[in-house]
Amino acid sequence: MSKEIGITVSKKDDLSEWYTQVVTKSGLADYASVKGFMILMPYGYSVWEKIKEFLDKRLKAMGHNNAYFPLLIPESFLRREAEHFSGFTPEVFWVTSAGNDKLGERLAIRPTSETVIYDSYAKWIRSWRDLPLLINVWNSVLRAEIKMTKLFMRTSEFLWQEGHTVHADKEDTDAEVTKILELYRQLIEEQLAIPALAGYKTDREKFVGALYTMTLESMMPDGKALQMGTSHNLGQNFSKAFEIKYLGKDEQTHYAWNSSWGVSWRLIGAVIMLHGDDRGLVMPPRIAPVQVVVVPIPYKNAEGGDVVSRAKSVAEHLQKAGISAILDDRAQYTPGWKFNEWELKGVPVRIEIGPRDVSRQQVTIVRRDKSERTAIPEADVVSETKKLLDAIQSSLFETASRALKEATHDARTYDELKRVIETDGGFVRACWCTETACEDRIKDETGATIRVVPVQDEQVFSACVCCGKTAKKVVYFARAY
Amino acid sequence: MSKEIGITVSKKDDLSEWYTQVVTKSGLADYASVKGFMILMPYGYSVWEKIKEFLDKRLKAMGHNNAYFPLLIPESFLRREAEHFSGFTPEVFWVTSAGNDKLGERLAIRPTSETVIYDSYAKWIRSWRDLPLLINVWNSVLRAEIKMTKLFMRTSEFLWQEGHTVHADKEDTDAEVTKILELYRQLIEEQLAIPALAGYKTDREKFVGALYTMTLESMMPDGKALQMGTSHNLGQNFSKAFEIKYLGKDEQTHYAWNSSWGVSWRLIGAVIMLHGDDRGLVMPPRIAPVQVVVVPIPYKNAEGGDVVSRAKSVAEHLQKAGISAILDDRAQYTPGWKFNEWELKGVPVRIEIGPRDVSRQQVTIVRRDKSERTAIPEADVVSETKKLLDAIQSSLFETASRALKEATHDARTYDELKRVIETDGGFVRACWCTETACEDRIKDETGATIRVVPVQDEQVFSACVCCGKTAKKVVYFARAY
Repeated sequence: MSKEIGITVSKKDDLSEWYTQVVTKSGLADYASVKGFMILMPYGYSVWEKIKEFLDKRLKAMGHNNAYFPLLIPESFLRREAEHFSGFTPEVFWVTSAGNDKLGERLAIRPTSETVIYDSYAKWIRSWRDLPLLINVWNSVLRAEIKMTKLFMRTSEFLWQEGHTVHADKEDTDAEVTKILELYRQLIEEQLAIPALAGYKTDREKFVGALYTMTLESMMPDGKALQMGTSHNLGQNFSKAFEIKYLGKDEQTHYAWNSSWGVSWRLIGAVIMLHGDDRGLVMPPRIAPVQVVVVPIPYKNAEGGDVVSRAKSVAEHLQKAGISAILDDRAQYTPGWKFNEWELKGVPVRIEIGPRDVSRQQVTIVRRDKSERTAIPEADVVSETKKLLDAIQSSLFETASRALKEATHDARTYDELKRVIETDGGFVRACWCTETACEDRIKDETGATIRVVPVQDEQVFSACVCCGKTAKKVVYFARAY
Repeated sequence: MSKEIGITVSKKDDLSEWYTQVVTKSGLADYASVKGFMILMPYGYSVWEKIKEFLDKRLKAMGHNNAYFPLLIPESFLRREAEHFSGFTPEVFWVTSAGNDKLGERLAIRPTSETVIYDSYAKWIRSWRDLPLLINVWNSVLRAEIKMTKLFMRTSEFLWQEGHTVHADKEDTDAEVTKILELYRQLIEEQLAIPALAGYKTDREKFVGALYTMTLESMMPDGKALQMGTSHNLGQNFSKAFEIKYLGKDEQTHYAWNSSWGVSWRLIGAVIMLHGDDRGLVMPPRIAPVQVVVVPIPYKNAEGGDVVSRAKSVAEHLQKAGISAILDDRAQYTPGWKFNEWELKGVPVRIEIGPRDVSRQQVTIVRRDKSERTAIPEADVVSETKKLLDAIQSSLFETASRALKEATHDARTYDELKRVIETDGGFVRACWCTETACEDRIKDETGATIRVVPVQDEQVFSACVCCGKTAKKVVYFARAY
């Protein structure tokens, strides 16, 4: 594919343009011809595969199985849960004909699959012995985006996983919702190196049709929050709408409980935006499709057999040690061109091998995040690379954690809240009376919403930031993607 | 999930009803509420995952990368390649509105992705250095089924992979098409244990828009052929319609060449139909999600601690040796109930461990396909199980190969061809003048089509089976799914 190398704007000066250039020039994704849609290109797909592998393995170990449900959902299914229908219907793509035949009933392209899945669950579940039922689906969903497209962040179709479980009671459902949120936290914090606030959504912000929603929220460099993953306790709302009932140990019929939860390719957007710099992507080592690139640097106009064979041997050593390393021995590109390309793609570690390195039995190792170069003995290359990959992973998380801390401000008054939101943005930690009226007013007047109600109540430190009445909760406000 | 154990009809008496019962009762798939659609249930999905793993790994080793392209395709894209459009448009699901807004142009849910993918390729490809471009996509496609739904075989939506490649010239494209057909043959014959005829489609039967199509065709027990996988050389038809051009080494602009190829979950349908018996599925070991089930058989009313702990240890030994083994120590079911369930699910090997086995330091090993029981020393369980799994894999393929041979008949006259097609079915090997008129007449009068034109010409042994003129090719006719 043809490449126009190099990002032409600075991240600080124009985040939005920088972001688009990084995504497209690094080969992660491209705009589709149909407005609102994007193409996940091979490099982007390989990042998505790393995320999938991590989650899929752990979901299976927790007892979940994958399945696949139809893309098309009859309008009447969507209508069965009233809030759910009114929440999703403005964004639904409707199918009205097949071939030359007009359909009797409109079919929705799934905006999420609760309704079509719970229709089947009602048929499959009979007794307490069938519970819990733990199913996960890898698919794409479509929600028409009327705002401007943003690659990975705001597209009319996105890849995700949606988990749908059935339980006997609230307690078991609560436990599932919490376990999944913890799994997502591990993915986001420990793999993507992105710190996140964990907690509940307010009733205003929860998933349409849920009893409650738990969420993980991260902060982007422009001061806007990004919802990273959500886990919902759906209560018995859907089981009543779809008649998911089971015969209990008590020989009585009960409505079952449901949870649903998902993360999407949006996570990749967060990685780009948070860790990237003016030279391009910076991939956290644990989800980097390529962790190390080995570049031989022959003398100008020389054959360079020695450096190439050393480089090849180093790459093979790394591969055998389980490190995802590649050798870039393409003759038609200069080392400098290669450095730029792999930096653009965010490969965490570059190993250079020139004639001097060969003669000294060393290699030069360069970390992408800080551009530090070190010469290390070739004999130590595996252990030193592993150490460096771990150090990069930790360092990215620490840097992002500091940024999150710096982007979080307490506000005791409405004026303070407004000033922060309208200048630097970030999270505003404030006290709230728990009335939706205050939440609505703040949203209307500042664009900020309550992103998180912390799991552990934090100590109230002022009156309600909006109405001045007695506050009951400390919550985190922000504008959001 | 509630289970009604046991298949109530014989495969020989009512293949269609037997098939539906096996699919649904084994937990592979279920009908969706929307006509024509099906749900791939967890057990079925795990078989699909085995197929995916096999192909994905090899496609990557051959240099292919995965990507994801939009679900929706503008009608104008589909129209650009005229034959392609007229071939697919009768089965297309059309999206006409998003939310409350009517769309300016109808969008097709992809029936296949050539058009939307080649629109991007035209933007990405500039020079011979960008070639070959080798991309594979795992997704679902929708084609409205007007005939009766048949789970896995005929559904309005199916999971598949579609590969789309770009090459500099015909030679390179031919090579790709052939390599992919060989990969599919390995999957179908060596993993699924299903013999297949390999060859070309006639112009009448080729993919709409292709230069030529290669295919693998298998024979089902009811005498109907099943197309297992196809690999197309698209020539420059799509590159001309979508302007996929590259600057060659000769500094001239050339239209590129394309190949596309795919296999779907239909392969699972073939496995069920070909290998299954009156007790249910028979899974070939190499794609069996569970290869071995270990069932402890305690004395009636006894705790059975000994047999359970032996069974557990045997299962662990097998797992450590890389065999997919599970322990079924569920207390609420009898051994007989478990035997039926695992036979229904087609698990290749069952290991029973009762008190007598424990005292003799042996286990009883039972193969699903032939129901043979053998006692083997517990110390040999890993090596004996491996041997048995290999033996089952070979035996299934040999049995199916014999059946294919028996279901293939030579015909020298049209009457002979008709009699075979209308009685036993199967493949009719016959000589053909290569005129489409004869092909059309045979299709109209018998329902049989030319399934395969063998890669290696076979020796002509009669005049054209239809018109009696000089024959040029030996071909294989059959009715098909």
